[in-house]
Amino acid sequence: MEREKDWKQQEHIPMLGAAYYPEDWDEAEQEKDIEWMRKAGMKVVRMAEFAWHCMEPREGEFHFDWLHRVIDRLKEAGIMVILGTPSATPPIWLEELDPDMRRWNHDHRQETHGGRRHCCSNNDTYNQYSLRIAEKMAQEFGREETLLGWQIDNEIDVQSDGCFCDSCVDKFHAYLEEKYKTIEELNRRWNLNLFSQAYDRFEQIPAPERSWHNPHLLFEWFRFQADSQIGFIRRQAEVLRAYSDKPIGTDMMPMMGIDYEKMAGFLDVMQFNHYNTEENLKDVPFWFDLLRPLKNRPFWNTETATCWNGSTCIGQSVKPDGFCRVNSWLPIALGGESNMYWLWRQHWAGHELMHGSVMSAAGRPLPVFAEVQRTAEEFDKAAEFIAGTQVETEAALHVSSTNSGLQAVQEIVPEPGAGDILTPYLYRVQQYFYQPMVQSGLRPDVIGAGKELEGYRLLVSPVMLTLEEADLQSRIADWVRKGGVWVVGPMTDIRDDIGAHYRDRAMGMVEELTGVALTYQIPDAEHRMKAVWSNGEEFIVNEWLQLYDVPENAEVLARVSEGYSTAIGKALAAKIKVGNGCVILVGTFPDREDMLRLMEIACRESGVKPLRHSASVTAVRRGGSQRGYIALEHDGQPATFVPEMKVKDILTGVEYAAGEEIAMKPYDVKVLAEV
Amino acid sequence: MEREKDWKQQEHIPMLGAAYYPEDWDEAEQEKDIEWMRKAGMKVVRMAEFAWHCMEPREGEFHFDWLHRVIDRLKEAGIMVILGTPSATPPIWLEELDPDMRRWNHDHRQETHGGRRHCCSNNDTYNQYSLRIAEKMAQEFGREETLLGWQIDNEIDVQSDGCFCDSCVDKFHAYLEEKYKTIEELNRRWNLNLFSQAYDRFEQIPAPERSWHNPHLLFEWFRFQADSQIGFIRRQAEVLRAYSDKPIGTDMMPMMGIDYEKMAGFLDVMQFNHYNTEENLKDVPFWFDLLRPLKNRPFWNTETATCWNGSTCIGQSVKPDGFCRVNSWLPIALGGESNMYWLWRQHWAGHELMHGSVMSAAGRPLPVFAEVQRTAEEFDKAAEFIAGTQVETEAALHVSSTNSGLQAVQEIVPEPGAGDILTPYLYRVQQYFYQPMVQSGLRPDVIGAGKELEGYRLLVSPVMLTLEEADLQSRIADWVRKGGVWVVGPMTDIRDDIGAHYRDRAMGMVEELTGVALTYQIPDAEHRMKAVWSNGEEFIVNEWLQLYDVPENAEVLARVSEGYSTAIGKALAAKIKVGNGCVILVGTFPDREDMLRLMEIACRESGVKPLRHSASVTAVRRGGSQRGYIALEHDGQPATFVPEMKVKDILTGVEYAAGEEIAMKPYDVKVLAEV
Amino acid sequence: MEREKDWKQQEHIPMLGAAYYPEDWDEAEQEKDIEWMRKAGMKVVRMAEFAWHCMEPREGEFHFDWLHRVIDRLKEAGIMVILGTPSATPPIWLEELDPDMRRWNHDHRQETHGGRRHCCSNNDTYNQYSLRIAEKMAQEFGREETLLGWQIDNEIDVQSDGCFCDSCVDKFHAYLEEKYKTIEELNRRWNLNLFSQAYDRFEQIPAPERSWHNPHLLFEWFRFQADSQIGFIRRQAEVLRAYSDKPIGTDMMPMMGIDYEKMAGFLDVMQFNHYNTEENLKDVPFWFDLLRPLKNRPFWNTETATCWNGSTCIGQSVKPDGFCRVNSWLPIALGGESNMYWLWRQHWAGHELMHGSVMSAAGRPLPVFAEVQRTAEEFDKAAEFIAGTQVETEAALHVSSTNSGLQAVQEIVPEPGAGDILTPYLYRVQQYFYQPMVQSGLRPDVIGAGKELEGYRLLVSPVMLTLEEADLQSRIADWVRKGGVWVVGPMTDIRDDIGAHYRDRAMGMVEELTGVALTYQIPDAEHRMKAVWSNGEEFIVNEWLQLYDVPENAEVLARVSEGYSTAIGKALAAKIKVGNGCVILVGTFPDREDMLRLMEIACRESGVKPLRHSASVTAVRRGGSQRGYIALEHDGQPATFVPEMKVKDILTGVEYAAGEEIAMKPYDVKVLAEV
Repeated sequence: MEREKDWKQQEHIPMLGAAYYPEDWDEAEQEKDIEWMRKAGMKVVRMAEFAWHCMEPREGEFHFDWLHRVIDRLKEAGIMVILGTPSATPPIWLEELDPDMRRWNHDHRQETHGGRRHCCSNNDTYNQYSLRIAEKMAQEFGREETLLGWQIDNEIDVQSDGCFCDSCVDKFHAYLEEKYKTIEELNRRWNLNLFSQAYDRFEQIPAPERSWHNPHLLFEWFRFQADSQIGFIRRQAEVLRAYSDKPIGTDMMPMMGIDYEKMAGFLDVMQFNHYNTEENLKDVPFWFDLLRPLKNRPFWNTETATCWNGSTCIGQSVKPDGFCRVNSWLPIALGGESNMYWLWRQHWAGHELMHGSVMSAAGRPLPVFAEVQRTAEEFDKAAEFIAGTQVETEAALHVSSTNSGLQAVQEIVPEPGAGDILTPYLYRVQQYFYQPMVQSGLRPDVIGAGKELEGYRLLVSPVMLTLEEADLQSRIADWVRKGGVWVVGPMTDIRDDIGAHYRDRAMGMVEELTGVALTYQIPDAEHRMKAVWSNGEEFIVNEWLQLYDVPENAEVLARVSEGYSTAIGKALAAKIKVGNGCVILVGTFPDREDMLRLMEIACRESGVKPLRHSASVTAVRRGGSQRGYIALEHDGQPATFVPEMKVKDILTGVEYAAGEEIAMKPYDVKVLAEV
Repeated sequence: MEREKDWKQQEHIPMLGAAYYPEDWDEAEQEKDIEWMRKAGMKVVRMAEFAWHCMEPREGEFHFDWLHRVIDRLKEAGIMVILGTPSATPPIWLEELDPDMRRWNHDHRQETHGGRRHCCSNNDTYNQYSLRIAEKMAQEFGREETLLGWQIDNEIDVQSDGCFCDSCVDKFHAYLEEKYKTIEELNRRWNLNLFSQAYDRFEQIPAPERSWHNPHLLFEWFRFQADSQIGFIRRQAEVLRAYSDKPIGTDMMPMMGIDYEKMAGFLDVMQFNHYNTEENLKDVPFWFDLLRPLKNRPFWNTETATCWNGSTCIGQSVKPDGFCRVNSWLPIALGGESNMYWLWRQHWAGHELMHGSVMSAAGRPLPVFAEVQRTAEEFDKAAEFIAGTQVETEAALHVSSTNSGLQAVQEIVPEPGAGDILTPYLYRVQQYFYQPMVQSGLRPDVIGAGKELEGYRLLVSPVMLTLEEADLQSRIADWVRKGGVWVVGPMTDIRDDIGAHYRDRAMGMVEELTGVALTYQIPDAEHRMKAVWSNGEEFIVNEWLQLYDVPENAEVLARVSEGYSTAIGKALAAKIKVGNGCVILVGTFPDREDMLRLMEIACRESGVKPLRHSASVTAVRRGGSQRGYIALEHDGQPATFVPEMKVKDILTGVEYAAGEEIAMKPYDVKVLAEV
Repeated sequence: MEREKDWKQQEHIPMLGAAYYPEDWDEAEQEKDIEWMRKAGMKVVRMAEFAWHCMEPREGEFHFDWLHRVIDRLKEAGIMVILGTPSATPPIWLEELDPDMRRWNHDHRQETHGGRRHCCSNNDTYNQYSLRIAEKMAQEFGREETLLGWQIDNEIDVQSDGCFCDSCVDKFHAYLEEKYKTIEELNRRWNLNLFSQAYDRFEQIPAPERSWHNPHLLFEWFRFQADSQIGFIRRQAEVLRAYSDKPIGTDMMPMMGIDYEKMAGFLDVMQFNHYNTEENLKDVPFWFDLLRPLKNRPFWNTETATCWNGSTCIGQSVKPDGFCRVNSWLPIALGGESNMYWLWRQHWAGHELMHGSVMSAAGRPLPVFAEVQRTAEEFDKAAEFIAGTQVETEAALHVSSTNSGLQAVQEIVPEPGAGDILTPYLYRVQQYFYQPMVQSGLRPDVIGAGKELEGYRLLVSPVMLTLEEADLQSRIADWVRKGGVWVVGPMTDIRDDIGAHYRDRAMGMVEELTGVALTYQIPDAEHRMKAVWSNGEEFIVNEWLQLYDVPENAEVLARVSEGYSTAIGKALAAKIKVGNGCVILVGTFPDREDMLRLMEIACRESGVKPLRHSASVTAVRRGGSQRGYIALEHDGQPATFVPEMKVKDILTGVEYAAGEEIAMKPYDVKVLAEV
């Protein structure tokens, strides 16, 4: 038997872990599993998230012994646990207590038992029993020595277009009445003179089933449904907190449906699941850059695949050597303290039988096992550096759930690809703005509307249709006047808080702040318009143009040179000094090269100093008890990174001079501490 | 204040106008809007089509003052008005009076409040209140001096596959009983021995929800639903006519669902909306050629976009310089008297916030503003020529809503592209027949089955599955015998009036009229069959072949030369003298070059004389108080037009000799009067 | 009048025939039709399959005279008949007796009257009346001299995802209770601890409407629905057998939804419909190879098109000369005794008006008529050879409805193409295994799990996820030990009988039988892994790899050479002696060339001797009263066939030497008897 440990979380950071379903296996198999976990170097396992029926097989009859036994066995192996509340998968006896508990879809068909998240987060009975099982778990495990923290529910989000049960519709009406006070005010703000849509009473307002609905109704429905999920999580957080001082979070997926800032308000730790593959690994840092500024403590990457995804595996491919390792390092580099795989051992029956894991259903290691072991060893080597340093940056990029929602329902931004209505917004922000920023050596905090701007010197706000959120209009104006450099992307500040046009001006505050006039807005999917930089070089225009008449003091960076006759000569990009700061207008979705050039100008103006590395490198400055960098090659190509000071790679012991171009292999990981 | 005008419509022809929604704006903004209208040269605005709630906010409480004030302000600015009855958008208090008012879809889900045209045109309550508001408007505005005319409802059509409410199903049964008299007769005509489908009573016949339905049932359902919309419009027309002598119409969209001839029967003026873009501007003349022969008075182009379409604009592109101008001229050239934009000023909230317009929501002119102004000035210059002349032609092309419906539901013609079930019929008629006709200098009237044939010398009838409509079989036979030249396209005259095959012959009347026998019908999507003209040159065969055994007196124009062995040598195209006229059979969808050649033969035979111009020119002979032409370049390319007499361009003053090849620039407009 | 015939079936073999709908035509037309049938050489017509309403227009009122008259007329023309029971198309009076008779779909919408197979095969009333009409027909026609046999219903299959009526759901619960006995056992076997899905009572288990359902539930639903169709057919078979000694069958379509072995158990003759075209004619032999071993008597090809398919013909093309002939010969060559066209004469109204046929609705012959005549003449010439010989083979290929269902619902095999959930399984079996086998000169019986293995020397089992069916695990082991050569394809023997993983081993019986260990299973859609044969030549890997650690006595045929590091060097294919036989493991979907090479090894090992011919030839050894071959070119290309003995072509009289390379023209047919 091992010596008694002091279960301080710090000793485990950075943590490698996995999801485990002890309810799948008898105790003999559990023993074997835990022995393999120890071999692999696991420090934490996530459990219980779907195990309601095992914990409460009949109403009010609670069984926690089996879970205690697993926790104890894991403790013996030096492994901590995260416990999930099981509200995503209610037992059938519970669903039978209230015929409306399961979600009603927009076509008035109800979900059936099966799957997950099929119940309505606004249903009273469902809430009541979800809170009770959470409370019981908190009482039972809240002070458990090896409990690292709580995960509430699982991947909560608005399912499809929400729930259309009577309870949801009633609460939607209450939400509208709370916000608009009178039906006359709602009619006025939504402009319901149009199409004779005006309502006499809030109760007349339909949930948006079929019909060509008013976009403001769609927007409010979308906000209401998203906020309903936040409320469901908050209620559980309050119950857990009453009995446990362990950090509380909920593991979320990469969508902008739910407002991350609102959710972060009452949680202790951000938790995040992703299943990105080689094709889109470059998009994962965006989410870590978004999670980092939400809380003052490191986030947890609660789920990622070791080797392949999904219920089905045919149609996929094994990932290359080194992918699992760099994928595991990414959250650690960018401000997290853990990386956990889904799942430890393949299920033997039921759903998702073919999902990648660490161990097969037969209890044999998968090909990726050795890579997992190596990663665990490296985490240990770098533990002191990781625990003693944080990510440092002076740049920020705006992203807002409100603006995502506005665009999705306002019929403004159709899907460039397929699928989710939220995709187009994220696609444009990531593709046209975030990617060029990080490729040019910046490491922006991706911030919501509510985030304080103090401490940033450079702020980029693309496609922020409305700035009427969290007092942004005046807060940005103040920050610019005090010296901030603000890059205003296309489609920013052109709508009010529910997506209506301004009637007496074209922009909410930018025109007044800078003295420009937004003259024309022109769609241009086919590149009929051309523009040039002030030195005559081409500025490539994509999808949309906003053209400005600018004041005397403005420096026009780019103008229209060809296309519709009345637009030629109008300013497409311009820089205007405002107080001690400046505003840089960009009236289109810029090509990568043009955005890199704009970022050069913005860095020069703001004094922000980018790192030097290849485009396929994710790099970050870290400071605190030491200084240094983490640099990861995320695209499977040879690359380079240049440190600004003399450093030593903690993983290999190799030293590099300041300014030396360090060669990185495909999927390479460098943890560089100043020496 | 301006001098009192004599509000005669003629002074305003040709009219440039726009849709305007005064219910969107307060009176101060209205003043500004009207001032900009005057600057732009607007002569007419369309209003009130969706403003029911503003006119009758509560049952029986009517408010027309606000509309009177706008009409008065417009009058001061010299602008006439068209008023729409608002039945497309009933207020919510009305919808609450009858729970079945909103349309029931084929999946037994009901429309909700929101959007437009979501109510059932067969619903009694909806009809009653729609007629009352129309009557009130007629009483209020029917004699208004500046009222140019009425528009009933908006873009009425069969929504999706129609309404499945009890009232519709009952009326469908009544429709069937009226037509077939006994259930035995219906069973017999639909051949319901097949699949044991026979009914015992009319009430057993289902509305065509799911299941693989009998095609004749589908056809009748489709006719019934289309006719229900016509009835809805007719009832309103009768009410309006009781109080107003202004011309009455309804603005329609380019589909063949509704029978345009039936609709024209009780209307005064044809109204038409289109949103074609550069890609399909060439298809717009088809609709104007169709509208022109329906009534003895010029039609109105009630809606078109200035610069881009739709609720969403991203994904589109600004149109080229000159496009708006030529698009505005097209209806004028082809027999209309007005062109109106949708919409004057972008909505500030609600639906369709990104649609192209003349003014932005902020009250600023769009880039296209100057082009609109220029077009208005040109309309004035050409006013005398336009008002004093009409389009002249001796050729006609058959199009029939019955045949469109037959093909759509008879599973005969699958979609070459996507979407609407009606598309394939129109696509084939336009692509294979109409386009080559107009490109070869013909300007056909596009006529329905009921149109008198007297006055035409050349008639083309493609894909007219049945000629058992409006006595066409005998009327065409008479007309041919008297000297007409009839081109019989593929799939014409091969079915009875509900789409059944003939059992004792392959064609309804053509075999008897000409002495030919239709031997084989062969599908050929992959061009396995080849044919040659009588001189051995290739005749390119598309999609389908009808092969004929011909009598002695026939001239075989083309024969099968390769492909399935038993078909080789059969006649694909032939000319047969009949009385003083002749019949030209064309047993396939011909390639453009082959159709041009057939048209040469048909013109020679009939004495019809085509104009000479490039393929991208829309040209028209006009005669009346003067003689001349209008020629428009519609495809953005350099082109030429050759006048038959000496002419002067009314817009530029330049003169051209008879037979001179006039160079036209992309999107050029020439209004040429004889000098 | 003709002389009295002795109506022995043998005289008619091989039979050319067609479907005929006398209910479509009056008696005068029937006379003409039968005269044309005689000219064409028809020997049998299929009738009555949809004629319920004509036979029983009102409940209990039976009319068979009309059908007797047709049968008599056909008899005069020397034509036999097959009669269909009409249960696919109940009359509307029957549907009205029970409001639940028509199928309820998964979205709780009910089918309407129209189409076919729209009623629930588990509905009691529907069953009762279906059995009564079958009984009446059996009594009326069961001893008819020219009755060749019975066809029950038409193309029965699970419609969409089955019927969701209360009766089906109740019977589903009974099915589950019968199989699992207790709900605890079901919970355990389905692993319903996962996602808290456990049930307390069988009645709680939902039919699988929306929601992300447990795959074992989906699998059982699928089995239950498929078995319900089998039960529906069996009940009718029992009734027919009581009054008739003619062979009974049901005409089926090429899917693996319904278990063909179960169905064959109580039928006398297999019947099969197909509508393959040039593009996929090569897939048709698979189905004939599957039908042949199911019964001891030759099968009937009950439906195929003469010249084009479908309700709609535009979009198709006339087939090439010779296609109809070779298509008609295929079933005869491969073990059938008849080929029948759908349909004799185009319907004149109702559904499917454009389907290819022998005669047009107008009663005129189609272009293909002469080819039909020629085929009939050839059938006569070859009659003695066909009747006296059978197909001979020593190889078999496994296909199982259970395994098809497991893969479809277990989320293992996504669709490579589109559409049907069953497609991927068949696609892989046919593409990777069947096609290379037949192209290399083998003529496998395609056998189900229950088929006896005695008599085969070579057995190929690809993608047989479970071998826990019909005692296959031990039966195969015995057969191998006695000398059989078993090729174990990828994804075989890796699941239990409901699709669960084994927990204590990776394969059910192969590891124990051979001493191998299945080390890794790796998806590889993008060909990241490479492998080589033992001589270093490339072995191309597709989609999926199973890698083995092999015992000393194994001969490794191929190994991984590149890709994920820990997999390099593992065995991909291996040969292991077991008793007197051997097992050949193939851990991937092999490319054609690699499969041909594996088949060479397997043939050498087993002593099976392939035929020699081009890849586009379907060839077969026949033996019995004579010896010989039939060789058909199915792909429209020049090809060759090499007989092993001296033969004469019965159709042309030409003789060929043993070993001579016989040149075959596109779509050529050679019937070669030993001389």
